Amino acid sequence: MDAPCLARSVDHIAIATPDIRESLQFYRQVFGVGERVAIEEVPEQKVLGCLIPLGNGARLELIQPTDPSTGVGRFVAQRGEALHHLALTVDDLPLALRRLAEQGFTLVDREPRQGLAGRIAFLHPRSTRGVLIELVQKG
Amino acid sequence: MDAPCLARSVDHIAIATPDIRESLQFYRQVFGVGERVAIEEVPEQKVLGCLIPLGNGARLELIQPTDPSTGVGRFVAQRGEALHHLALTVDDLPLALRRLAEQGFTLVDREPRQGLAGRIAFLHPRSTRGVLIELVQKG
Repeated sequence: MDAPCLARSVDHIAIATPDIRESLQFYRQVFGVGERVAIEEVPEQKVLGCLIPLGNGARLELIQPTDPSTGVGRFVAQRGEALHHLALTVDDLPLALRRLAEQGFTLVDREPRQGLAGRIAFLHPRSTRGVLIELVQKG
Repeated sequence: MDAPCLARSVDHIAIATPDIRESLQFYRQVFGVGERVAIEEVPEQKVLGCLIPLGNGARLELIQPTDPSTGVGRFVAQRGEALHHLALTVDDLPLALRRLAEQGFTLVDREPRQGLAGRIAFLHPRSTRGVLIELVQKG
């Protein structure tokens, strides 16, 4: 059977943090990345976020919850700064979501929506062996 | 002050798993990646591991502990399958480690050693705001 969702590349790795300004400053000072990166508020996800580009097109995403009652809020309360999710690019996000749904995958987002990284959708960790995976429409 | 450790790209994202064969099978079937990837034993780290190449040079690393008393073993016992560490490429790994040590960073590896992904060294999470970061010598 064909894979329902061909992954092309790593779009980003997301780190959840209790203080995005301090975290961004850390990555700038230690790893020399993210110099011109701006922190944005994403009200519909109740986070502050930024994307730090790295050499091969993969990015580091930093997210700070602005509401402790969200999934990210509880995650940070429990674990502090930690790896939060993995985002993979796909060629055709609506098709990938349709095929995953047909095969019984649990989707957080059944339709693409606008996220910090572009047109995105999250798969539920119960369908991905525990790791939170985000799909990002390529291009 | 210059960054002690210029990060060039994402080398890989590592997922720790209780069953690497099942996890690799999952990424093959769902995302169509890792078809020709082989699982290796890395005795000095007490893991089984494999590297799944993705389009932009970034890779997914899967690791399964072979000894429950190691850091990875305890991690998997506690969290099950989960994002474990982030690996960044650097141009000059010995220089990066020397400069990080001079600036007081806690290093798991003070010298480069051979890992699944090449010449590598881990930084201690207490120096990296909680996220386990591996450095990989480029090229």
